[in-house]
Amino acid sequence: MVTGLTRDAAVEIIDFIYKAIELISDSEKEAFLNTLLEARKNGKRIFVTGAGRSGLVAKAFAMRLLHLGFNVYVVGETILPPIVKEDVLLAVSGSGRTKSVVAIAEAAKAIGARVVALTTFPDSPLGKIADILVRIPGRTKLAKEEDYYVRQVMGVHEPLAPLGTLFEATTMIFLDGVVVELMNKLGITEAELQERHANLE
Amino acid sequence: MVTGLTRDAAVEIIDFIYKAIELISDSEKEAFLNTLLEARKNGKRIFVTGAGRSGLVAKAFAMRLLHLGFNVYVVGETILPPIVKEDVLLAVSGSGRTKSVVAIAEAAKAIGARVVALTTFPDSPLGKIADILVRIPGRTKLAKEEDYYVRQVMGVHEPLAPLGTLFEATTMIFLDGVVVELMNKLGITEAELQERHANLE
Amino acid sequence: MVTGLTRDAAVEIIDFIYKAIELISDSEKEAFLNTLLEARKNGKRIFVTGAGRSGLVAKAFAMRLLHLGFNVYVVGETILPPIVKEDVLLAVSGSGRTKSVVAIAEAAKAIGARVVALTTFPDSPLGKIADILVRIPGRTKLAKEEDYYVRQVMGVHEPLAPLGTLFEATTMIFLDGVVVELMNKLGITEAELQERHANLE
Amino acid sequence: MVTGLTRDAAVEIIDFIYKAIELISDSEKEAFLNTLLEARKNGKRIFVTGAGRSGLVAKAFAMRLLHLGFNVYVVGETILPPIVKEDVLLAVSGSGRTKSVVAIAEAAKAIGARVVALTTFPDSPLGKIADILVRIPGRTKLAKEEDYYVRQVMGVHEPLAPLGTLFEATTMIFLDGVVVELMNKLGITEAELQERHANLE
Repeated sequence: MVTGLTRDAAVEIIDFIYKAIELISDSEKEAFLNTLLEARKNGKRIFVTGAGRSGLVAKAFAMRLLHLGFNVYVVGETILPPIVKEDVLLAVSGSGRTKSVVAIAEAAKAIGARVVALTTFPDSPLGKIADILVRIPGRTKLAKEEDYYVRQVMGVHEPLAPLGTLFEATTMIFLDGVVVELMNKLGITEAELQERHANLE
Repeated sequence: MVTGLTRDAAVEIIDFIYKAIELISDSEKEAFLNTLLEARKNGKRIFVTGAGRSGLVAKAFAMRLLHLGFNVYVVGETILPPIVKEDVLLAVSGSGRTKSVVAIAEAAKAIGARVVALTTFPDSPLGKIADILVRIPGRTKLAKEEDYYVRQVMGVHEPLAPLGTLFEATTMIFLDGVVVELMNKLGITEAELQERHANLE
Repeated sequence: MVTGLTRDAAVEIIDFIYKAIELISDSEKEAFLNTLLEARKNGKRIFVTGAGRSGLVAKAFAMRLLHLGFNVYVVGETILPPIVKEDVLLAVSGSGRTKSVVAIAEAAKAIGARVVALTTFPDSPLGKIADILVRIPGRTKLAKEEDYYVRQVMGVHEPLAPLGTLFEATTMIFLDGVVVELMNKLGITEAELQERHANLE
Repeated sequence: MVTGLTRDAAVEIIDFIYKAIELISDSEKEAFLNTLLEARKNGKRIFVTGAGRSGLVAKAFAMRLLHLGFNVYVVGETILPPIVKEDVLLAVSGSGRTKSVVAIAEAAKAIGARVVALTTFPDSPLGKIADILVRIPGRTKLAKEEDYYVRQVMGVHEPLAPLGTLFEATTMIFLDGVVVELMNKLGITEAELQERHANLE
């Protein structure tokens, strides 16, 4: 059995996600799912964007959307068609302030695409642009350095997990839950996902 | 509060990770950490590899290794120096059978690098190559289609989460725990991580 | 006017490409174009692969195939569907020996995809797998070190441009020529290419 | 011998590059080289950026800078440290107007990094930000559709090569020339480049 800070931090992250999932709004989740499902039904495309580790979480979800039969693209990769009116841009940013993500969301919005934001901050620049927003709990500020050691030694209430970890992990698990709900709504089986999985890797 | 299959699946994933973390071997974790710390101390480099969503989990960990002051590279990206004797290759593959990952591990091993594998299957081709192995619990086979609907409707015990999801999520949270233990062992604060975080994004 | 070794090397590369284009087989070029055009007509997909700078040349061509309305994907990127029978794998490797490229070509071939190779060496592992091969002139071996300085100082006949440069540059210009012939054969205008160009960048 | 529009267009591109190389300013080239060499000498880092095919050209140069022993990174890839004062940002954009590239150049400039621009338009937003600029000839506007067919049929003077092709190809060959001059100035042999070439691919 794993011990030490690895275990303490992993358990802390799991506990955080458990509580965070409870706090995500059901109506926001529904609006998000409906936006994806409508886009699929109408032959529209989903574009995903995010920087750093949030970008990796966005890509992990994009892979599953591909397996679910969505027309999906990642901003910044080689194969990127133009976004058009009524396509969907899914932007992932904990702070909602990452410049490149906000710039892409603004460009997509100007073209008439629907912007979906996954962010901790509804009042952020990204939050304000979004047509659909799902608030994902995360850290609200950079913990002060002194606090960090205090909580390591004394088990005080600030999280062990640094920087955006809690937001990224919560978003990943939430989106993996969304995948299961999409499977169910679309009547897609795991075997069908498998059939759309890359075989050159 | 989020409801429906999104919540059910997210909770199932969280429960799985909780149990899975318990099952990870402490001595395997220790060997993994020591390999990373020795490499850092001796000016060696860490290379990470993985395909698909496992590759994204590997990249998310690579970013944190960068923030921790490691010399770290991602196989397949533009800036990739040659691996040399006593560098570390960290390979992430649930099945341990992904061809490109196994081929890279073989090449690294032949050069004299130390191969660390994160996999569910110690007896897989990747598992057999590895110098250091951390067994991460995950699905052991593709669920049969009929089972899938049964469990959706009737709450039977097979997981909702499709394909490699449980392995990927468990590996991500485990590695985020490892990051905290590395911070502690190296005496690196969150503010220091922040100082090494990308500012062009 | 630019002077010095920058100019000398650039002119040498241009001269090389000029002669190399003359040496490319017209029937090989025709077979390559027909393979692409047939795939497009039959709703098949093009997958491209290559390592290092050859991989970048492959990606540059993939972007233009997208602009030309092809269904095109890059092996190793996030959005990668499975390759199926009669899809096309375009593999770029000067030596024809790059392990990951050969492994991908083998996997594609086993599935029944058509493998197109752009390589200097028809007898290489990649060359032998290929259904369609275009031989692109390039360096035939690593120049010896002493030769290198000799030719810098004395203008001897070995190329200034190091490693795979001549192959990569020739392949890029050849493929840009192919793009123009595809535009003509498909009756696609530059304005239509522009319409399919990414607008989120 | 290759014939048809593939050959015509390839020859046109080669002719263009030949003339374009003549038009690049020697003093701009010198300032560019000196900026790179100074950064290397002072332990500073080079960051490269560019969108689409210009981004691929930037990456191809970044690989060679790595082989030459530079500390080099690609904006947008996993391993990206923060840029600091006196680091170099090399931005490639034909139009000088690509939003993400301009945004990154602005961010780098604000931090005190030196911005080097390779662009056709010195008066563009990117051109105006740049500390060092190398003007690379390219298309000056999108050719009108009618002109396109005219020139295909009648050999009129507008280029066959669409969109940014001439800029991208010229920039690639120019940078490959710069690599040879850097090899010479640094006394680095081809064998030494080879030693720093990736071996996991």
